[in-house]
Amino acid sequence: RVPCSAGTAPEQELLCIFGTGDLGRSLGQRLLQTGYRVVYGSRRPHSCGPLPERAQVMSHAAAAQSANLVFICIHRENYDFLETLAPELKGKVLVDVSNNVEKNLYPEANAEYLQRLIPGAHVVKAFNTLSAWALQNGPSDANRQVYLCGNNAEAKQAVSVVATKLGFTVLDRGSVSAAKELEDFPLQLFPEWRLPLRLAVGLTAFFFFYLLIRDIISVYIKEKKDISFRIMVSLANKVFPIVSLIMLSLCYLPGVIAAFLQLYRGTKYKRFPDWLDRWMLCRKQLGLLALGFAFLHVLYTLIIPIRYYVRFRLSNRTPEFDTTMAWRTDSYYSVGILGFGLYLLLGITSLPSVSNALSWREFSFIQSKLGHVTLFFCTFHTYLYGWDKFLRASSYKWYTPPGYMLCLVLPSVVLVLKLLLLLPCVDRSLTRIRQGWERTNPDDDSRKSLLT
Amino acid sequence: RVPCSAGTAPEQELLCIFGTGDLGRSLGQRLLQTGYRVVYGSRRPHSCGPLPERAQVMSHAAAAQSANLVFICIHRENYDFLETLAPELKGKVLVDVSNNVEKNLYPEANAEYLQRLIPGAHVVKAFNTLSAWALQNGPSDANRQVYLCGNNAEAKQAVSVVATKLGFTVLDRGSVSAAKELEDFPLQLFPEWRLPLRLAVGLTAFFFFYLLIRDIISVYIKEKKDISFRIMVSLANKVFPIVSLIMLSLCYLPGVIAAFLQLYRGTKYKRFPDWLDRWMLCRKQLGLLALGFAFLHVLYTLIIPIRYYVRFRLSNRTPEFDTTMAWRTDSYYSVGILGFGLYLLLGITSLPSVSNALSWREFSFIQSKLGHVTLFFCTFHTYLYGWDKFLRASSYKWYTPPGYMLCLVLPSVVLVLKLLLLLPCVDRSLTRIRQGWERTNPDDDSRKSLLT
Amino acid sequence: RVPCSAGTAPEQELLCIFGTGDLGRSLGQRLLQTGYRVVYGSRRPHSCGPLPERAQVMSHAAAAQSANLVFICIHRENYDFLETLAPELKGKVLVDVSNNVEKNLYPEANAEYLQRLIPGAHVVKAFNTLSAWALQNGPSDANRQVYLCGNNAEAKQAVSVVATKLGFTVLDRGSVSAAKELEDFPLQLFPEWRLPLRLAVGLTAFFFFYLLIRDIISVYIKEKKDISFRIMVSLANKVFPIVSLIMLSLCYLPGVIAAFLQLYRGTKYKRFPDWLDRWMLCRKQLGLLALGFAFLHVLYTLIIPIRYYVRFRLSNRTPEFDTTMAWRTDSYYSVGILGFGLYLLLGITSLPSVSNALSWREFSFIQSKLGHVTLFFCTFHTYLYGWDKFLRASSYKWYTPPGYMLCLVLPSVVLVLKLLLLLPCVDRSLTRIRQGWERTNPDDDSRKSLLT
Repeated sequence: RVPCSAGTAPEQELLCIFGTGDLGRSLGQRLLQTGYRVVYGSRRPHSCGPLPERAQVMSHAAAAQSANLVFICIHRENYDFLETLAPELKGKVLVDVSNNVEKNLYPEANAEYLQRLIPGAHVVKAFNTLSAWALQNGPSDANRQVYLCGNNAEAKQAVSVVATKLGFTVLDRGSVSAAKELEDFPLQLFPEWRLPLRLAVGLTAFFFFYLLIRDIISVYIKEKKDISFRIMVSLANKVFPIVSLIMLSLCYLPGVIAAFLQLYRGTKYKRFPDWLDRWMLCRKQLGLLALGFAFLHVLYTLIIPIRYYVRFRLSNRTPEFDTTMAWRTDSYYSVGILGFGLYLLLGITSLPSVSNALSWREFSFIQSKLGHVTLFFCTFHTYLYGWDKFLRASSYKWYTPPGYMLCLVLPSVVLVLKLLLLLPCVDRSLTRIRQGWERTNPDDDSRKSLLT
Repeated sequence: RVPCSAGTAPEQELLCIFGTGDLGRSLGQRLLQTGYRVVYGSRRPHSCGPLPERAQVMSHAAAAQSANLVFICIHRENYDFLETLAPELKGKVLVDVSNNVEKNLYPEANAEYLQRLIPGAHVVKAFNTLSAWALQNGPSDANRQVYLCGNNAEAKQAVSVVATKLGFTVLDRGSVSAAKELEDFPLQLFPEWRLPLRLAVGLTAFFFFYLLIRDIISVYIKEKKDISFRIMVSLANKVFPIVSLIMLSLCYLPGVIAAFLQLYRGTKYKRFPDWLDRWMLCRKQLGLLALGFAFLHVLYTLIIPIRYYVRFRLSNRTPEFDTTMAWRTDSYYSVGILGFGLYLLLGITSLPSVSNALSWREFSFIQSKLGHVTLFFCTFHTYLYGWDKFLRASSYKWYTPPGYMLCLVLPSVVLVLKLLLLLPCVDRSLTRIRQGWERTNPDDDSRKSLLT
Repeated sequence: RVPCSAGTAPEQELLCIFGTGDLGRSLGQRLLQTGYRVVYGSRRPHSCGPLPERAQVMSHAAAAQSANLVFICIHRENYDFLETLAPELKGKVLVDVSNNVEKNLYPEANAEYLQRLIPGAHVVKAFNTLSAWALQNGPSDANRQVYLCGNNAEAKQAVSVVATKLGFTVLDRGSVSAAKELEDFPLQLFPEWRLPLRLAVGLTAFFFFYLLIRDIISVYIKEKKDISFRIMVSLANKVFPIVSLIMLSLCYLPGVIAAFLQLYRGTKYKRFPDWLDRWMLCRKQLGLLALGFAFLHVLYTLIIPIRYYVRFRLSNRTPEFDTTMAWRTDSYYSVGILGFGLYLLLGITSLPSVSNALSWREFSFIQSKLGHVTLFFCTFHTYLYGWDKFLRASSYKWYTPPGYMLCLVLPSVVLVLKLLLLLPCVDRSLTRIRQGWERTNPDDDSRKSLLT
C-alpha cells in the first residue's frame, strides 16, 4: 500500500479509452502519469496486447459505463460498431482523435460522422494533431497546442481541463463543423510556403528567360557567337541576386503599406484587407527564400575566380590600372558582404529557438530596423554595381534595361516610402495610432504588449 | 491571512526532503510553488542555512514521520546514517536523486544501496538526470523528461504524479536494477556521436594515406619531384569531399535497406536486426558530420585562387580556350553549389527548434525526399568532376582508381536502390505495408500517425 | 449537463479579472481552460465586447467580492477609480500585470502606486513580462518564467500556485519595491549585448585608425602614393580578424582568471568580484560577436581574387616559385579554415535549442575544451601569417608593430595560462576545489550537478 494515494485520491478521475493501439497506449500512459485512472474498452479484454501497468481493461460497454469521458482511439472504418453502444454512451463526452491518410477520403469529417452515429453523446474533436510519439514524450514547444471543436461547451471544457493537465495549451476552434479543417491539419505540406515558393519560381523563370534572350541569344543573333556555356554560372549569378532583392523588398513592402493604411484610416483597430493580411503572414517565408537566393549568389560569386573561363581570360590581358575602378568594385563587394552578414543575422534570429528568446521589443528591432538596413545595404550594393551604367545608352540593348536595373525598382520604392514614414511628423502620428491612445477603451490595459 | 488558501487546501500534500544543499533547496522551492507543503529533514534543524520561505525544518526522524514521500538529496557517502531511521522510513516512498562523479565508482547503484539499507521502504530512482538549475527554472524542451525506476509500481506512480505536477514527463525504466543505467546518464559524453565520429576518423585516415601514396609519394618516386606542400590544401580538399559523400550515402543506405527488408518480409511489425536499428539511430549524426566535411570542402575550394601556388601557375600559362571545358567546370561548380545549398537546408531543419516546428509529414518530406535529391546532386557533381576521365587509362595510376571514383560506389548503389523503390509497383506495395493495412488490428487507430 | 464537472468540482476556484481588453481576455481564457472559474469586473457589464465562453461578467464591486484573487488588467492611468473599491478589495490578493510604454514615466512603480491606493489589499506584481500572445498560446521555453514580487508571502504563494497551474515557472524577486525593476524588463533592448557591442565598436575604431595611419597615410606621406582605395577591403580585412581574435580571447580570459582565483583562495564557495561576474555573464555575447567578425574576415578573404586590384596585379607579374612560400600560405589558410569551422560549431551549439539538448558535461566539453582549441587554431593561424616577419626590422614601420602582432598578445597570454592550468598537479587541486570535497557540508548532495 502506498500511503500518498490517500492524499491524491480525491482527484483521481476515471477516464475511458476505446482502442488499444499505439495511440491508445501512449495516451493511457500519460493519463496515468498525470494522476488519472484509466480503463480500456476492448473487443477482447483478455488478449489485447501489452497495456500500461495499473490500467484496467473491460468490454466496451462496461468501460463506457464506468467513465464520463471516452477517448475513441479507433479507425474511422470501425466506428460503425459504436452505434450498438449508443445507450451506454448517452450523455458521455466522446473525444475523437482520429485522422485520415488522405484529404477528402470521406464526404464528412470523422467527428461529424461519430456525432451522427451517436447523437446522444457530446463529440469533441481533439488531440488529432499530435502523434503517439508527442503524447508519450509530453508537450514540447512545437507540440504544445491542442485544437479542439465540438457542439457542447461543457464537454469542450471537460476535455480542455484534461489537455491542460497533460501540459498542453488548448485552442477552441468552434463547433463540430470545424472538425474537417482540424483533420486536414496533419496532412498539410508547408501551406505557408506555397505562395512564396510559387513567387520565387515565377520570378526566377521570368528573369532567366529575360536575361537568356537579352544576354546570350542576342549575342548569338548579332555576332553569331555561342556563349551558351555562360548559362550555368554567369546567368544564374545574375538571376539569383535579382530574385533575392525583389523578394526581400516584397518582404518589407506590406509593412510599409500597412503603416500608410493606418495613417490614412487614423486607427489601428480596423482590419486590414484580406490580401494584405495574407501577404503579411508570409513575410518570414519571403525573407528566408530571399536569404537562400542571396546565399547562392554569394557562392556563385566566390567561385568566379576558379572558373575555367575566368582563368582563361585573366591570363590573356594586361589592362591599365584605374583607381576609380578599384574603388567601385571594392565598395560594392564590401557593401554586399555587410548586407549579406546582416541578412544572415535576420535569418538566424528567425530560428524558432532564437526568436523565442527575444523580447517583443528586441524582435521588432531586429526584424524591422535591421531588416530595412539590410534592404538598404543590398539595394546600395546593386546601385554601386551599376555605377555609371545607368546613364550610358549602351546599357540598354534592344531598348531593354539589364536585369539588375529592373530589380531596383521595387526596393527603391520600399526604401523611399519607409523614409517618408520616418519623418518626425509622420512617425509621431503613426506611433500615436499604434499605441491606440486617441480612441482607446478606458479599462483596457493589454494593448501595450501587442503593439505592432 | 490569505483567503484563497482555503480554496486550495485539500490538495496541499506534505512532502519531505532530506538534505538542504543546492538541489534540496531548488526542489523544495519548485514543490512549494506547485502548491505542495514541504518539510526538510536536517541534522541541525536550527542552523542549516537559507531555505525557501514557508518550508518547515525538523530533525530527520520527525520530518520522515510527517510525510509519505521523502526525497533523499544527500551524498551517497552519507547514506549510512539513514539506516538508523529505518523504523520511521518503513513503508515510505524514498526518492533517490543522487549521482556519482564517475562511472563504476561503487559496485552497486546508489538506489540499490539505499534499498538494501532500508528494505522496508519503497525506493524510487528519479530526477537524477536534472540539474538543480533545471529544477529551479522549470522544464524546458530539452529537460522535460524524468526517468524513474523502482520495484514498487504504486510508489513509482506516486512519484510520477509529483513529477507531472512539476511539469515533467515521466519515462518508467522498470525495476530498481535499472538504476545503474540511470545514474550513468549524466556522465555520458555524446554517446550517439561515437560511432559516426569513429567512422569519420577511419575514412579520413584511409583516404588520406591512400591519396598521399597515390598522388604525392608516387610522384616523388617516379619523377623525384617533391610536391609535399600540396598536403595542406590540395590533398585535404580531396579527402574531405570523399568522406562527406560516403557518409551522406551511409546516412541514406539504412533507410533503403529497411525498405527492402519490409518488402521481403511483407510486414512492418517485425523488428529490424539490431545492427540496422543502431545504424538508423545515428543517421542524423552521420548526416551532420557529412555536412561538416562538405563545408570544409567548400571553404578549401573557395581559397584555391588565393593560394600562392595557384597564383604562380596562373600567371605562367596561356592555354587555348575550350568551350567543352568551360561547360564542364561551370556545370560541376553549379551542381556542387546547389547540392551544398540543399545540404545546408537539411542541416538547418535538423536543428531541434526547426524540426520540432515541422509536422511529421513535412519532416519526412525534407529528410527523405530532399535528402535523396541532395545525395543525387552531390553524386552528380562528382561524376561531372570526373567527366571523361572514367574511361581514360591514364586515370588509373599504379592500377588504383582516384579517390573520387572510389567514393562514388556507395552513393551510386544507394541511388539505384532508391530508384527501384520508387518504381510504381514496388512503391505501392511498400506504402501498403507501411500503412499496415493487410494485417492490421481492427480496433487500432494509432498507426497512421506513426508511418515511417 | 456534462457529467465530469462533478469529478473536478472541488478544484474549481473562482478568480476575478478587472479589465476586458486583450490581456484580460487571454488570461481569462487560459484560466478557464486550466479549470478555474472566472468572473470579469467591468464598468459596463452588459456591453463589454466578446469575452470567453463560460466566464461571468459583473460590476467591479460584485466581482471583487466574489473572489479572493483579482487580476488588475487595467491601464495605470485608470487605477484611481479602484480607490472607491477599497472596502471590497480589503484582504484580497491584487495581481498587478501592467506595464508602461516608457521607462521612468512615473516616479513610483505601478504596483507600488496600486498598493498605496488600496493599503488593505495584498498587491503582487506578476505576469507583466508576458504578452497577451504568450498567455493565450501557453508557455514556451522562452516564455516560461513569471517574475513576481510583493510584500505578503502568502499572497505571493497564492499567485505562484495559479502561475504554476498555468504551466509557468515562478521566480520570486522579493518585496513590492522590486516592482520597478520588473516593469522595466519588457522595455529593455539587449541589455546583455551592450558591453560586448561597445567593446567591439571601440576595438574596431582603434585598429581602424591605427592601421589607417600606419598602412595608408604613412605611404602617402613617405611615397606620395594614394592607396586610399584599399580602405574598403584590404584595411577592413585587417581590422576584422584582429578584433575577432581579441574578442575570442576576452571570451576565455575570465574563465582562466576565475580558475586562478579559486586556486589562490582554495575554495569555490567565495563569490567572485563583481567585475569578474559581469564579465563571465557576457562571454556568450563576446564569443558570438567574435564569430561575426571572423565570418566577415572569411568573406573578405574569399573575394580577394575577384577584386579588380588583385586581378590587375596578378596579370602583371611572374615570380619565381618558392616551396616555403607555398607551405606557408597553404598552412595558414588550412589552419584558418579549421579554426573557423570549430568557431562555427561553437556558434551553433550556443543556439538555445541546441545547447538545451546537451547535457551539462557535453556543453562544458564543447564550450571549454573545444573553445580553447578554437582559440589555439585561430592564434596559430595568425602566427603562421606572420611567419618570419616577427624577426624582421622592416615589419616595424615608424617603430609600430603591425596590427596582427598587437592582437596576438592577449590570446597568447590566455593560452599560456590555460596550459598552466592543465598541468597535472594544478589540474588535480583545481578539480578537487570544484568538486567541493575538502570543505563540503556533509548532508549536501547537490553540488555535483553544479560543477563549473
